[in-house]
Amino acid sequence: MSCHPVLIDGQWRPAVSSSSFYASNPQTGASLDESYPVSDWADCDAALKAATVAARQLRSMAPERIADFLEAFADEIEKRAEALVEMAHLETALPTSPRLADVELPRTTNQLRLAAAAAREGSWMAANIDTQAGLRSHFAPIGPVCVFGPNNFPFAFGSVSGGDAAAALAAGNPIIGKANSSHPGTTRLFAEAAIAAIEATDMPRATVQLLYRTSHSDGERLVADPRLGATGYTGSRGAGLKLKAAADAVGKPIYLELSSINPVVILPGALREQGDDIAQDFVVSGLMGTGQFCTNPGVTILLEGSESETFVEQVRSKYTEAPAGILLSKSVESSLTAGIETLVAAGANSLTSGTAAASGFSCPNTLLSVSGSEFLRAPETFQTEAFGNCSLIVVAQDVDEAVEIAASLEGNLTGCIYSDTQGSDDDAYDRIAPELRTKVGRLLNDKMPTGVAVSPAMNHGGPFPATGHPGFTAVGIPAAIHRFAALHSYDGVRPNRLPPSLQDANPNGKMWRLVDGCWTQSDVSA
Amino acid sequence: MSCHPVLIDGQWRPAVSSSSFYASNPQTGASLDESYPVSDWADCDAALKAATVAARQLRSMAPERIADFLEAFADEIEKRAEALVEMAHLETALPTSPRLADVELPRTTNQLRLAAAAAREGSWMAANIDTQAGLRSHFAPIGPVCVFGPNNFPFAFGSVSGGDAAAALAAGNPIIGKANSSHPGTTRLFAEAAIAAIEATDMPRATVQLLYRTSHSDGERLVADPRLGATGYTGSRGAGLKLKAAADAVGKPIYLELSSINPVVILPGALREQGDDIAQDFVVSGLMGTGQFCTNPGVTILLEGSESETFVEQVRSKYTEAPAGILLSKSVESSLTAGIETLVAAGANSLTSGTAAASGFSCPNTLLSVSGSEFLRAPETFQTEAFGNCSLIVVAQDVDEAVEIAASLEGNLTGCIYSDTQGSDDDAYDRIAPELRTKVGRLLNDKMPTGVAVSPAMNHGGPFPATGHPGFTAVGIPAAIHRFAALHSYDGVRPNRLPPSLQDANPNGKMWRLVDGCWTQSDVSA
Repeated sequence: MSCHPVLIDGQWRPAVSSSSFYASNPQTGASLDESYPVSDWADCDAALKAATVAARQLRSMAPERIADFLEAFADEIEKRAEALVEMAHLETALPTSPRLADVELPRTTNQLRLAAAAAREGSWMAANIDTQAGLRSHFAPIGPVCVFGPNNFPFAFGSVSGGDAAAALAAGNPIIGKANSSHPGTTRLFAEAAIAAIEATDMPRATVQLLYRTSHSDGERLVADPRLGATGYTGSRGAGLKLKAAADAVGKPIYLELSSINPVVILPGALREQGDDIAQDFVVSGLMGTGQFCTNPGVTILLEGSESETFVEQVRSKYTEAPAGILLSKSVESSLTAGIETLVAAGANSLTSGTAAASGFSCPNTLLSVSGSEFLRAPETFQTEAFGNCSLIVVAQDVDEAVEIAASLEGNLTGCIYSDTQGSDDDAYDRIAPELRTKVGRLLNDKMPTGVAVSPAMNHGGPFPATGHPGFTAVGIPAAIHRFAALHSYDGVRPNRLPPSLQDANPNGKMWRLVDGCWTQSDVSA
Repeated sequence: MSCHPVLIDGQWRPAVSSSSFYASNPQTGASLDESYPVSDWADCDAALKAATVAARQLRSMAPERIADFLEAFADEIEKRAEALVEMAHLETALPTSPRLADVELPRTTNQLRLAAAAAREGSWMAANIDTQAGLRSHFAPIGPVCVFGPNNFPFAFGSVSGGDAAAALAAGNPIIGKANSSHPGTTRLFAEAAIAAIEATDMPRATVQLLYRTSHSDGERLVADPRLGATGYTGSRGAGLKLKAAADAVGKPIYLELSSINPVVILPGALREQGDDIAQDFVVSGLMGTGQFCTNPGVTILLEGSESETFVEQVRSKYTEAPAGILLSKSVESSLTAGIETLVAAGANSLTSGTAAASGFSCPNTLLSVSGSEFLRAPETFQTEAFGNCSLIVVAQDVDEAVEIAASLEGNLTGCIYSDTQGSDDDAYDRIAPELRTKVGRLLNDKMPTGVAVSPAMNHGGPFPATGHPGFTAVGIPAAIHRFAALHSYDGVRPNRLPPSLQDANPNGKMWRLVDGCWTQSDVSA
């Protein structure tokens, strides 16, 4: 079968390419039979050229039109729901239902519709009017955005369908999707939905483009190209850091979500009160999606004692009994195996003795443990990410040691603390929480981190190496949109030349603007 | 005379140092007689250790206390006004009055008091409450901040007194100032004022620390240290890019202001209406502070024609007649000379024939010109920054060419367009402005760029290489404060454990918070 074409400037056209690749069926390990091109630089260049034209057209377009497009895109996705779910299941082995059909697909269309609502209302621009100084500012589109989506959420974080794409489009930028190599067919179907929406709403042809893969060096050239505005990347730390270095060297914003082990601290009072429930929640959270969630609880800190011993035994037994799930790809299997080997070589004990799935990409569910003092002898090594169905238990001898462990942590997306309701854990909480707070983007109480609500108060971000900058979130509107915007100030610019959001009249009566220090939806009074 | 001590953890103590340096008197070119240490890594390490302790203390401190400190700092600066002005004049040759005493010093204390007001009120935290999802977020201090101040504003952008310092402190971070080597004595006096304020308001001793200089490699190690939160840098592009690479490699935020030539487009109708005034304004703006402003108009784009010829002749004659000012340092003199040589070698014509000042660091006032077509043959070379009293005129043959020139520009802090009031320039404006808009942080109409108002709607920032990220501004509160903050989300965190800004009750009745999508100063209703 011949290679699939790429989507450039509204046309599916043969890639300029000298090689190709195949995705795999993770349930069998066998290659799928559709071939996808590794694009040469000529394709990147053509996409950038078309995106430059589209960016110019989008900048002068009414936000309502961008909103209409995003809603049409969501509609077109729903029309293709069955094909999308089938293809994603084939390429990722994620369960058809509820995961793909009933959770991730609705989340994806919901994100696009929230992005549409944000574009229509315009408060994300943070319009700021200083009438005395004659200065007005707002956030404006940054330019074409390249999106590298991850392997683990083919819909909700997908290169052309996910949160980064929705945020970049809502800001008024065209996107160039770089498909994740483990699910190119799924990404292709989303691009088909995007093109149908582009045609239905008469948007610039290059509003959404798609390449499947490039060489590493062309990827680095792409994120550093002067015509590009910014990049969103979710994926492995190694590849991400190379793209980051290339983009940083020329001052191109790049937002990365790289790795996170999401520490969970479970205090003894909480275990006494509800240990069975916590153990059950932990197992669900830890093995959900075969552990392949960005916010998977990878390291759990307990205090020495019988409650903790019981908890570990409960989890150990459930991990051993539960059938091992399928992993997304051969490379996830390899890096999980390597991660576990690193942790064991450093001194972690393996508590489980299950087996991998009979066929396909799989590792046994693995629970490791280490004492707090051993952890503190090599905190960096013990924070090796083992992305998948593996979790490390750290048993601290006392609260002092737990505080020290929290202080030794790298940056993470999330940190959780379970404590009892009677106050016996409060002293420990008050000492551990301040340390954990500075290490994570989102601090949770009494629940597992795997749920990531799409809320304006969400932070799906955190200090390096969780992401590249602790001030930005990849989930949550309007904050996620700001990543793909530049701050534009207007100084003494004549009123008729100001963009609608900065004119005296509020453009839609709904946009929140900061006028002379007060937030208001009113017009600027004469 | 022995070397000045450094300020670490509240103590002036001898530097751990194996070399020292002297500042110069720019008016004579001679070395001043006070010697300052080049600190070894041991000093950096000690400052980081003390800053870590101070950061922890500041995080749990009421914002009112930080505000009190910032106001006391402003008061202590005013007490030392005479000594500061005298020292800064000696070290920089900037005029005592009005520049230092009557403009820059009041601006500096005003910035500190605005930062205090912002800290006290708290709206900068952008508290965001989603009652339905049980999520609450705000911006919180990022950790110790290192500030590298520039040579050209010893007060208002000074390492311990300027905008970056004020913003970092207002967010609740301790700062480590790295003095600019051209005015160490001025920076020392500011640190003395800071220590007096720290003592008067009982703040952590390491809230403000001061080192004078480090090796390049220790500077790179400092901005990448895990204990550091972020860095603010204003200075040369070469040194800044090295620090940026070091910080970026480990995901430490670094905000840089690097270089900007601030294009000014003057359309023929505007010249017909008020050519004499524009020429006068241009000369004042171009030679102010001997051209050593970040927003100095370094390149001016005109359209071929008699109005433009008259304008160039007016400016040429004023540039030739005006006495050449003193430059801040030998290195400014050298790089200005080199910049002019690069521009001339590329084909620019020198229109002026003045002389440098009789003594001290100085270059003749220099006006260069080049045709639009020549500029477009080597746009990168013709954008070489010649920081100082030099300006390049580019004469475009028509509007098409002017648009092409605007499109070829790199990122800048500002871009100005002068147009007439009768509409004859409007077509040209409408074609040039959209290109210029995407290249600059602040777009001006009908005025020169050198004034930088401290306003919430200011953007003293812009696309690379003007700065390292087009979404941030170094001037203007609250936006400047956000640079030194991390986004913290609280998910299901028990109400009594939330920080005051995120509890149901508005902590002071004045803080603006986004509650369920609406900005309000009210409490969250039960």
